[in-house]
Amino acid sequence: MPRPRPATIRDVAALAGVSVGTASKALNGRGSLRAETVARVRRAAGQLDFRPNQAARSLHADRTYTVGMITTDTIGRFSIPLLIGAEDILGAGQVSVLLCDARDDPIRERHHLQVLLSRRVDGIIVTGRRAGTRAPVGTGLPVPVVYAFISSTEPGDCSVVPDETGGIRLAADHLRSTGRTRLVHVTGPAHHHSARVRAEALTDLVAEPLFGEWSEAWGRRAAGLLLARGLDLDGVVCGNDQIARGMTEALREAGRDVPREVAVTGFDNWDVIAEASRPPLTSVDMDLEGLGRAAAGLLLEAVAGNPAPGVHRHPSRLIIRDSTVR
Amino acid sequence: MPRPRPATIRDVAALAGVSVGTASKALNGRGSLRAETVARVRRAAGQLDFRPNQAARSLHADRTYTVGMITTDTIGRFSIPLLIGAEDILGAGQVSVLLCDARDDPIRERHHLQVLLSRRVDGIIVTGRRAGTRAPVGTGLPVPVVYAFISSTEPGDCSVVPDETGGIRLAADHLRSTGRTRLVHVTGPAHHHSARVRAEALTDLVAEPLFGEWSEAWGRRAAGLLLARGLDLDGVVCGNDQIARGMTEALREAGRDVPREVAVTGFDNWDVIAEASRPPLTSVDMDLEGLGRAAAGLLLEAVAGNPAPGVHRHPSRLIIRDSTVR
Repeated sequence: MPRPRPATIRDVAALAGVSVGTASKALNGRGSLRAETVARVRRAAGQLDFRPNQAARSLHADRTYTVGMITTDTIGRFSIPLLIGAEDILGAGQVSVLLCDARDDPIRERHHLQVLLSRRVDGIIVTGRRAGTRAPVGTGLPVPVVYAFISSTEPGDCSVVPDETGGIRLAADHLRSTGRTRLVHVTGPAHHHSARVRAEALTDLVAEPLFGEWSEAWGRRAAGLLLARGLDLDGVVCGNDQIARGMTEALREAGRDVPREVAVTGFDNWDVIAEASRPPLTSVDMDLEGLGRAAAGLLLEAVAGNPAPGVHRHPSRLIIRDSTVR
Repeated sequence: MPRPRPATIRDVAALAGVSVGTASKALNGRGSLRAETVARVRRAAGQLDFRPNQAARSLHADRTYTVGMITTDTIGRFSIPLLIGAEDILGAGQVSVLLCDARDDPIRERHHLQVLLSRRVDGIIVTGRRAGTRAPVGTGLPVPVVYAFISSTEPGDCSVVPDETGGIRLAADHLRSTGRTRLVHVTGPAHHHSARVRAEALTDLVAEPLFGEWSEAWGRRAAGLLLARGLDLDGVVCGNDQIARGMTEALREAGRDVPREVAVTGFDNWDVIAEASRPPLTSVDMDLEGLGRAAAGLLLEAVAGNPAPGVHRHPSRLIIRDSTVR
């Protein structure tokens, strides 16, 4: 149902809890604002279906109101929430997203980059399926680039990455706050960036992390190893939800009560895995939708002439379920 | 690493196993070809990083080589493979994809449609998170529209949908071919289009389908109900992989051997669920990437003046794992 009257900039400002001037800046991508503020205003604009009037728009006639999004590898579980978050911010600001999938192919990526530039996009978001660093998509590009989820090896570039260290610490601190003192860390392959970063964040708490695979099967196998060693453990910090689910199942089948005897945490807060687990999993959520919104906000700021170089860490949060406290 | 010499149309034709004329038609979106042929040629072009020369392209100067993709609800598990498939075909033909997410909001969808038309896209793909029918995005539009995964209620529109009836029959026929005669069907909510279509496809084999939720918890609960009734069953056709996984787990925990005593099939072939299940699940795969490729191929054909109105059913296939035969 259409609303009785079109929303005005005043309505947007009120909903976002900012001044009209700030709302205007955020929507036009002018001035210097925090990415969160830009995000909040654009979200409010989207909710109210606010349409900036054309006269105001024509001040920025050199812009195409198009942004390119290049995914390094394929579109996957981690890029979707990023895409949704970015589209949330950009769509509300009347910016269209051109999506390109480079599929781990440098030639394909270069081609996509050329196409985006020939279409005169206002800016580019580069993302990927795995966290970690990558070489810049190009040098001396005529438009700003923001890396999201992945980060650029070039320090002058702008990257927004999940705070994996902070995230896994949230899980460990939660276990300690519920009285667990004998912690184990079971995670993915040692060569994987996220497995390494998360394990390093726990070196003061865990003697020797168990590296394996990102799978339930590995979680079950690791539980078998730990039980066979007769280890006196009361908490397992897992590298992802699949490992945590396998771990939880194997502990239960071995007669260990989760969470009474052993508490288990996951990572990713992947609902289909975390909620189907018995008991449901306490898990670290990297807030990838928020990360996508932040990246889009930073890109719009950069398009408006306010770049924010460096690596920006987006905070994780802990979702507590029955696998740690009942 | 760049290839020693750029690929020619001859290389593309050879890789695709078609004539040079057919390859040319497929890449330029001219003439009348089967969607599969167009898909195969464009895939080959992508693999070889083939770039059509600019002189040939300028014959079609009225085209923008941009296609819009509108998702009715949000970008989700089912739209990703569609997107990947469509991007596969379009990207190889040098067509860029403008992505719009309407989030179940008719106002937002209308806005996106206006933006796409004002950007003079060559055509539009409309998709959604759930299979089923929907009203056309617009009438008398100046560019062709193809509905993918969902179908339009307007018979003159072009829609490509998964063959859910054929898919669930593949599962049931496979169970019967392995000697199962006492089948049960456990599926999602009765008001859900896919649950209804799949249940109706089995009316001659299953007396009374059990409708519930698309969750592992429902699969476990349904197993409890069936066991409590003391039903003498030897095969369970489940409406999705999550239900099948819950069912399989509950049967195992009740001491029933899967597949020796009871065989179980899933639907969706969602690897993280189907492969982590014990035993791994035989499952119906709707080939959504292939469906996305077919939809993109049909759109390019329509752009070239060869529309294919009606509902096109894309075949499903059965992936056999240990939950039905060991």
